[in-house]
Amino acid sequence: MTGSPSSAGVSTALFTDRYELTMLAAALADGTATRHCVFEVFARRLPDGRRYGVVAGTARLLESIERFRFGSEELAALADVVDPSTLEWLGDYRFSGDVDGYPEGELYFPGSPILTVTGTFVDAVVLETLSLSILNHDSAIASAAARMVTAADGRPLIEMGSRRTHEAAAVASARAAYLAGFSATSNLEAERRHGIPTAGTAAHAFTLLHDDELSAFRSQVSALGPQTTLLVDTYDIRRGIELAVQAAGPGLGAVRIDSGDLGVLARQAREQLDGLGATATRIVLSGDLDEYAIASLRAEPVDSYGVGTSVVTGSGAPTAGMVYKLVEVDGRPVAKRSASKESRGGRKSAVRRFKPTGTAIEEVVHPAGAPIEVGPHDRVMPVPLVRDGKTVPGVETLEQSRERLRAALVSVPWEGLKLSRGEPALPTVFEGMS
Amino acid sequence: MTGSPSSAGVSTALFTDRYELTMLAAALADGTATRHCVFEVFARRLPDGRRYGVVAGTARLLESIERFRFGSEELAALADVVDPSTLEWLGDYRFSGDVDGYPEGELYFPGSPILTVTGTFVDAVVLETLSLSILNHDSAIASAAARMVTAADGRPLIEMGSRRTHEAAAVASARAAYLAGFSATSNLEAERRHGIPTAGTAAHAFTLLHDDELSAFRSQVSALGPQTTLLVDTYDIRRGIELAVQAAGPGLGAVRIDSGDLGVLARQAREQLDGLGATATRIVLSGDLDEYAIASLRAEPVDSYGVGTSVVTGSGAPTAGMVYKLVEVDGRPVAKRSASKESRGGRKSAVRRFKPTGTAIEEVVHPAGAPIEVGPHDRVMPVPLVRDGKTVPGVETLEQSRERLRAALVSVPWEGLKLSRGEPALPTVFEGMS
Repeated sequence: MTGSPSSAGVSTALFTDRYELTMLAAALADGTATRHCVFEVFARRLPDGRRYGVVAGTARLLESIERFRFGSEELAALADVVDPSTLEWLGDYRFSGDVDGYPEGELYFPGSPILTVTGTFVDAVVLETLSLSILNHDSAIASAAARMVTAADGRPLIEMGSRRTHEAAAVASARAAYLAGFSATSNLEAERRHGIPTAGTAAHAFTLLHDDELSAFRSQVSALGPQTTLLVDTYDIRRGIELAVQAAGPGLGAVRIDSGDLGVLARQAREQLDGLGATATRIVLSGDLDEYAIASLRAEPVDSYGVGTSVVTGSGAPTAGMVYKLVEVDGRPVAKRSASKESRGGRKSAVRRFKPTGTAIEEVVHPAGAPIEVGPHDRVMPVPLVRDGKTVPGVETLEQSRERLRAALVSVPWEGLKLSRGEPALPTVFEGMS
Repeated sequence: MTGSPSSAGVSTALFTDRYELTMLAAALADGTATRHCVFEVFARRLPDGRRYGVVAGTARLLESIERFRFGSEELAALADVVDPSTLEWLGDYRFSGDVDGYPEGELYFPGSPILTVTGTFVDAVVLETLSLSILNHDSAIASAAARMVTAADGRPLIEMGSRRTHEAAAVASARAAYLAGFSATSNLEAERRHGIPTAGTAAHAFTLLHDDELSAFRSQVSALGPQTTLLVDTYDIRRGIELAVQAAGPGLGAVRIDSGDLGVLARQAREQLDGLGATATRIVLSGDLDEYAIASLRAEPVDSYGVGTSVVTGSGAPTAGMVYKLVEVDGRPVAKRSASKESRGGRKSAVRRFKPTGTAIEEVVHPAGAPIEVGPHDRVMPVPLVRDGKTVPGVETLEQSRERLRAALVSVPWEGLKLSRGEPALPTVFEGMS
């Protein structure tokens, strides 16, 4: 599903910070360029009070790495950035190293080795910005969206926040929200590029365009059928519902309410619809909903939610804060050692320990080569994603990643699904490391 | 400058919410499609406690409207969304209406008519999502960036947040930050696409790659010259500065410190550099800086700042919250009238009133046709941007918009530039409207 007609073949090579190329140039000149390096992507902490993070963007990243090539246009743009011999080297660049990582849709915790990029220094250093942009954005959206899915408690959610974020970020947001369990998106490019179901019928503008509300509803029913969703809060909601049923009959698909005290309005709407015989007509709520508002509507007769701003902005945490750190050079662990922002050197792996019941207990992060006990219920977290520059066959589809997250959330101890602020749902244990 | 080789010609038509096309199909069927409509983009309020907003993204929007065409690939993707006759109509679509708006780089306040799109219903309704995505994103970034520029009080700022946001949003963020007065960006695509100066030399990884810090510094100086910026906080900062001057000589361009108590470290670094004779070596600070941290460093010997996460995420306000509302149909004012989220109907314009000293006093929003007094120091805010589907010649360049914002910020009453939370810097007065 990845790769639309409009993105296939377009180079991703300039989604890169200048310093990666100046480091590369200097390393080519001084002979360190071919040192064998391990870079690791991890989050030092979760966003304030969050209990888990959701890995998202992996498939997008793998596809973007394949398009990370410096063609003649990219090289021309870099003529003032690096020297001619570096340009020549870039012209031949193609990532030829390995990538391992947590599967997309998996949970992560502070210190989890989410992605490990292995190769020569120059092979791996240039992927820093692209990797972080994709993982930080998509994981932030998926992490927020997963909390909304939990809050909705089985009721469907529609992502409709495209207008509140960058036009391309909107497409990735729709994908991340779907991964997290949303049912559909309003974004048409997300359907084309990622195969995500789209939804949407009409805005207030459609009602205002017409001479009266009934004309607008009749027109919509005529064009989209009585199973459509009519937006009933342009004028008086009670009157809107009456006209909606008048236009579509008691078989009307749904009414949408986008403003006001949504809980009260949902109860009134349900009662009114039932009174009109429209007992199967669904109630869709939208309008500044976030995970807390969704949770507060749990007792109301709501059938689905439309969520915009809060999901595409990560509901207070618009970036996941992951970093891309060099941890090993020619087999030697390396790490920054000044005052703060310290890192743990050396290539790492992780095992998630589970009770026999399937409930997760802890995230054990350990040196990659060291022996580690893996019990019958435990799971080694990273999987191979790229070998010698080629994406490993069998990387999960979006549907599989969606199912993976669903299952992962079931494995979290119950406190981990609370919306309130707290500690990570699983403790990270660093084993065999200073 | 807009339009890179990789974006030119690519359709923007699917950066659209499905409901725009279903409304369009219904309007084509019922005969309301050609009603003359006015849509208005405005913000009901500024983000929590902010005193002004900065209009950004206008030039990107105008260029994206030119690429808003449904080619064969887009039409194929919509085969299940709308009926065949609507598809045919879309195939011929080209925006042929008018757009007026606040020039890019201008300040806006609650209710300011930031953009006005005029045309038939179907002409204008399909631009809702694209317009809002671009304006909401770019304005959020520019609005946050402008506060950082004020906090930096003349010291240069480098935008280096690409890794914390979607890879395409990163390019737009770099542009918006530059518009707001940042000096440079780390993002190479932003240089190619928008002509923004790039900066960047090395990360901690470069030091860790080498056998020791001195080798790394020598390599960097050899590749980039002694005027480069050396990152001195990988190990011990004091020792790092000593080695940096040893490698580059007292003519070293700059040292960068990315962690720790930055104010204290800057003072110590200045003293040490001066003692080593490197009196002209600049001090660059980075690491989780936002406008408040920048302001708190005002008394320290800092020469420039690198800003990442906070600028690309809008420093707590990742979206500007603008809406796109139908306000007029065939000359008749229209507006939603239910419980909340009310809007004012009718096409509007705005005049900003100024004292003779050049200080702005108030934002007067009024019906577009109504007579309004425009004093000798006052300014009519909207300007023509598109006429009959064609971008008006002379739309400002990015450099001109940058200068416009700089001048606009000078015109704001002094309280309006405070970083603390407060009321909008200018009151919005709705004149001649209910």
